[in-house]
Amino acid sequence: MEKSMLRVCVVGATGYAGVELCRLVVGHPALNLVMATDRKQAGTRLAELYPAFEDVSDIVLSLPDPTEIAQHADLAFLAVPHTAALQLVPELLSAGVTVIDLSADYRLKDPVVYQSWYETPHTSPELLEQTVYGLPELNRASLLELSACRERGEAVLVAAPGCYPTATALAAIPALAAGVVSSDLVIVNAISGVSGAGRTPSARTHFCYANESLEAYGVAKHRHTPEIEQTLTQSAGHEMSVVFTPHLAPLNRGLLSTVTLEASKDIEADELQAIYEAAYEDEPLVSMLPAGTMPQTSSVAGTARAHVGVALDARRRRIIVASCAIDNLGKGAASQAVQCANIVCGLPETSGLDFVAPVL
Amino acid sequence: MEKSMLRVCVVGATGYAGVELCRLVVGHPALNLVMATDRKQAGTRLAELYPAFEDVSDIVLSLPDPTEIAQHADLAFLAVPHTAALQLVPELLSAGVTVIDLSADYRLKDPVVYQSWYETPHTSPELLEQTVYGLPELNRASLLELSACRERGEAVLVAAPGCYPTATALAAIPALAAGVVSSDLVIVNAISGVSGAGRTPSARTHFCYANESLEAYGVAKHRHTPEIEQTLTQSAGHEMSVVFTPHLAPLNRGLLSTVTLEASKDIEADELQAIYEAAYEDEPLVSMLPAGTMPQTSSVAGTARAHVGVALDARRRRIIVASCAIDNLGKGAASQAVQCANIVCGLPETSGLDFVAPVL
Amino acid sequence: MEKSMLRVCVVGATGYAGVELCRLVVGHPALNLVMATDRKQAGTRLAELYPAFEDVSDIVLSLPDPTEIAQHADLAFLAVPHTAALQLVPELLSAGVTVIDLSADYRLKDPVVYQSWYETPHTSPELLEQTVYGLPELNRASLLELSACRERGEAVLVAAPGCYPTATALAAIPALAAGVVSSDLVIVNAISGVSGAGRTPSARTHFCYANESLEAYGVAKHRHTPEIEQTLTQSAGHEMSVVFTPHLAPLNRGLLSTVTLEASKDIEADELQAIYEAAYEDEPLVSMLPAGTMPQTSSVAGTARAHVGVALDARRRRIIVASCAIDNLGKGAASQAVQCANIVCGLPETSGLDFVAPVL
Amino acid sequence: MEKSMLRVCVVGATGYAGVELCRLVVGHPALNLVMATDRKQAGTRLAELYPAFEDVSDIVLSLPDPTEIAQHADLAFLAVPHTAALQLVPELLSAGVTVIDLSADYRLKDPVVYQSWYETPHTSPELLEQTVYGLPELNRASLLELSACRERGEAVLVAAPGCYPTATALAAIPALAAGVVSSDLVIVNAISGVSGAGRTPSARTHFCYANESLEAYGVAKHRHTPEIEQTLTQSAGHEMSVVFTPHLAPLNRGLLSTVTLEASKDIEADELQAIYEAAYEDEPLVSMLPAGTMPQTSSVAGTARAHVGVALDARRRRIIVASCAIDNLGKGAASQAVQCANIVCGLPETSGLDFVAPVL
Repeated sequence: MEKSMLRVCVVGATGYAGVELCRLVVGHPALNLVMATDRKQAGTRLAELYPAFEDVSDIVLSLPDPTEIAQHADLAFLAVPHTAALQLVPELLSAGVTVIDLSADYRLKDPVVYQSWYETPHTSPELLEQTVYGLPELNRASLLELSACRERGEAVLVAAPGCYPTATALAAIPALAAGVVSSDLVIVNAISGVSGAGRTPSARTHFCYANESLEAYGVAKHRHTPEIEQTLTQSAGHEMSVVFTPHLAPLNRGLLSTVTLEASKDIEADELQAIYEAAYEDEPLVSMLPAGTMPQTSSVAGTARAHVGVALDARRRRIIVASCAIDNLGKGAASQAVQCANIVCGLPETSGLDFVAPVL
Repeated sequence: MEKSMLRVCVVGATGYAGVELCRLVVGHPALNLVMATDRKQAGTRLAELYPAFEDVSDIVLSLPDPTEIAQHADLAFLAVPHTAALQLVPELLSAGVTVIDLSADYRLKDPVVYQSWYETPHTSPELLEQTVYGLPELNRASLLELSACRERGEAVLVAAPGCYPTATALAAIPALAAGVVSSDLVIVNAISGVSGAGRTPSARTHFCYANESLEAYGVAKHRHTPEIEQTLTQSAGHEMSVVFTPHLAPLNRGLLSTVTLEASKDIEADELQAIYEAAYEDEPLVSMLPAGTMPQTSSVAGTARAHVGVALDARRRRIIVASCAIDNLGKGAASQAVQCANIVCGLPETSGLDFVAPVL
Repeated sequence: MEKSMLRVCVVGATGYAGVELCRLVVGHPALNLVMATDRKQAGTRLAELYPAFEDVSDIVLSLPDPTEIAQHADLAFLAVPHTAALQLVPELLSAGVTVIDLSADYRLKDPVVYQSWYETPHTSPELLEQTVYGLPELNRASLLELSACRERGEAVLVAAPGCYPTATALAAIPALAAGVVSSDLVIVNAISGVSGAGRTPSARTHFCYANESLEAYGVAKHRHTPEIEQTLTQSAGHEMSVVFTPHLAPLNRGLLSTVTLEASKDIEADELQAIYEAAYEDEPLVSMLPAGTMPQTSSVAGTARAHVGVALDARRRRIIVASCAIDNLGKGAASQAVQCANIVCGLPETSGLDFVAPVL
Repeated sequence: MEKSMLRVCVVGATGYAGVELCRLVVGHPALNLVMATDRKQAGTRLAELYPAFEDVSDIVLSLPDPTEIAQHADLAFLAVPHTAALQLVPELLSAGVTVIDLSADYRLKDPVVYQSWYETPHTSPELLEQTVYGLPELNRASLLELSACRERGEAVLVAAPGCYPTATALAAIPALAAGVVSSDLVIVNAISGVSGAGRTPSARTHFCYANESLEAYGVAKHRHTPEIEQTLTQSAGHEMSVVFTPHLAPLNRGLLSTVTLEASKDIEADELQAIYEAAYEDEPLVSMLPAGTMPQTSSVAGTARAHVGVALDARRRRIIVASCAIDNLGKGAASQAVQCANIVCGLPETSGLDFVAPVL
């Protein structure tokens, strides 16, 4: 460790997003993993739970005590369930710790919406305005402002987006931002690998249940719905509605979101492709695929990247079908959190994220 | 074999639908597998290619010669690529063989539509009118008429539906037929296991390509689109348009089709559920799941059954989301073909199809 | 239900072996599922837990009360953990219920060995001698004797073998019984799908843990070891030792056991093949594959069958490598239990088991 | 690219080992991918075949012309089938290009053994003696000698080991080298993921064939047998025989080799564990797991690492069961080749290989 490295604590280090954060921080040239917490397994070596860390990191899990965290870390990633962050965030910020929160607690700008979907009141609504929703492709300017605040010594808060909202936003934003969508209803059908359901064993995450099966779940009631609507509304500049149907498929990592939008009457396929290519031309972690190509999750699994493809169904009406593939634990969780941390901490945006992942 | 059994030939017996037909015919109490053909592997024991048949069937593959078939069989299942059926069907019918054709060749009523999607002229358009599209849940009456024809000594032709059209129809028909859909556009997002891509090895069916990956494919141009439109139009009683986006997921068998429809303004969730329950109450091979439940493909894999679930998203607009799970090789291909054969041949509709399949 | 059908209770109906038994009994022409028990979910429809039973069986789970069972059932399959059968079996037998016990409790003939491996004393050792170890390929004569007892009105007890012991025995027995093995040590390496670990969710059965991974487990201490030794000793006619290394692989169903044996000096490959072919020639549910062919589990998944292949490595020493593939829930558990029940109840041995399973 | 970087050509860049090499070279701090060849797809962007390279590398495939390679590259990795390397290696060495050959052509020291297993004469046997078999854990000293040669301006040749021989050697070497093995016969049972079968589509690599199945293959005749014997013989210091049974399991990456060895009479489990721990204490890419723990392939998938576990079955005889998990494309192919290149080129041994891989 060099003296100049940022000291990092991963809170909730044993869940899938948490351990992925540990992996990314351990491999990051400017971040130093000084603390990894777990409420139930404090005292255990991380490598005992995840042998992949054997001879790679000798970190021992500790309790998520905010005072301890503030003493040892400059930056905390929170990979905790919603409501747990409500408790930790104000204390950490007060203690001067910059927080990248991967829970849902600070993503929704409206505490009423939060309460209606998460069935619990928001206990620190005063923090919501200054929190930046950490989708760099949409909110890079705001993240850079946080960076300036941080340089002035303030602890800042980023709400890292959910996995479905990330992929859906990256599929829909170029069309919405370009104003080529004529309806205000977006049909979102997405498919996730099983790691999206978390590490806690349950009937639904049993190998023999999930393997060799497909199903829709959370239909008309998935909690990512208002988050998707908030993002698409911001991007379109007017209220957007979403019908969101997530599906579960038998793979570990990978999330594909396919959006269906009614297009303006006169748009042509090549224009649409050009709009998308322009939107992502300068994005370091989003690749727009060539015309006629749709993304596959295996190409981004294990990486910090997103792949996007678009098609126009002009046969009867003009319908845009756009698809985005991410790793739900990468761009959908941990690597996006690190991307935000990089920006907020004044590091190169892709620092620690520009590794090449296995192609199969 | 009893004398009264129908003699069956499976044409194209080594592809996935073909071998599934062989399995079903071998286990059928009233059908006798007398012939199984393959153009390239005539002379080979089926058990050599598929050891599952070892000590179960000693059938040897033969060439698909129509004269031979007519000599030995009363009924032929055609599990062949499109255009191959165009050649075989007229000859088999003339020779008095009843045909259940699993190819796409006789599914579309309009030969112009056929030509525009399959890029080849239809060479026996005169057969299209009398052909019954073999979705028993929609066309049972017509299939029973064929049964009457057959009893009078005529050879008849059934065009067994495609896998995506079957699942999509079963998800959408109750709402369409009940007149509670207000738009004429149906958004169809479907996911198929890899067996849907056929048995011929290719880059896309390589284990390491398909495993641990998700992707949309054939966007805005999949050939099942006009077949879906034809079926939904028949069911709705007026022209319906479809935006169809199929996806590939890493499992062997299973197909899930999720349809999104705008509902009439005043429909409530329990009414919708009641409409679906009524629609499938007497169907022997379709189960409507309880309210709040969505189907999973593993519950129907290896079976002749379909499971359907429906939800109403009434939050902003009233949107119907209905999902149907089938085995793409079962109700999406082979078992549906046998179901049609049963009806057409005057057998109980579920004869040979009422086995219970593995629950995992 | 016909009056002449045997009334069956499946005890422990919600575990994987239990639900597979329910499936087989429901599809059996001479068995009638009158009762299915689960200690924790009594009152629940089986179809609610396993939607595959929707519109197939409306059975509701009940408590495993021996008196109730004896009142309703002629035959009970026990799909319960070890020690649970110790409690149920004596009571059921006394009440006149024939029992096919799938637990380990009555498999080992020596209660001292039982206690040393299962760390609990055997509470009904007096039943061990009369219990038949239900591997029909080895003990058909004894099973037929039970059938005679049962005809005289006695309730009888069969201990259905474990999954690893079944596949290992079928791979090794022909060579051992023919006396062509020169050493008394058998090296057994086996691989099982995840359903072998049971239905209870745990860290090791989580999809993301088991998927895309391989591991050895229970090395030098798996409880199937003494059962394998007992069977191979019986077959060889003298004491055999086993080194047993089970592995876990990412599939639902399927178990492959590969045994390595030192051969007598003068045996040739074709003799060995002939010995195996002769051994299984008349077995209704075991197929000996052609020379040069090794079995794959997918050919037997979902079935009651076993496939066996053998090779001779004559390069340096003469080593026999034999491999047997079964479905761990089929021939390794439920279907073997039904096979035993058929014999014991005077039914055709393959009754309800001669279905053809999906070839993929 | 910095001027001081080594210029690298990957020959056979589109196969699985080849593309993994491209990935590792692209991410390597001291290697520069200047050329990637494919005989059939020259002119195509690598990213077109493998979208994971989109926006990561813009390399275009070229033909494997030795003169071209020598003009552009200092170092060539050959990821080609056997016999193809026989043709390329002499020419590349003559032209001054250091070669890391991943084919089998230069692994066996005895050209007679090569010919008997590969059924083709070895055309450059004079190169065999100076070639180093690139298992650093066994032959690091020899690799360092090559490094010295290379510093003197010589082009050198490393034969990178096969995947099964690597895992088997790492499992067996500590016991053999410590002299605690009493027999000269090693029973090797190994399981590989499907990528080991290569990228060419075939019936056996079809998703629906390999998925949900297990099988032994190549029994008593797999070509890695003599390579394993050569390595174990070198390690033991006397002639060793091997019975090698490889199995195929449904996963992309991962190889597990379990070896069974008769131990010296007086060895105890803790001694054995200590011997293994000592053997790997200073190895940068091999981790010896704690006593009682066996390795799982998922912990090393995507990495350059190997995990080893050992157990003693002292119940009847003393039998050592040792298991090693690697990524067949990593330590079993590409990363081991890079590890060798690092040593031979005077770079830190783990340069470009010390990334942390996904833990699931």
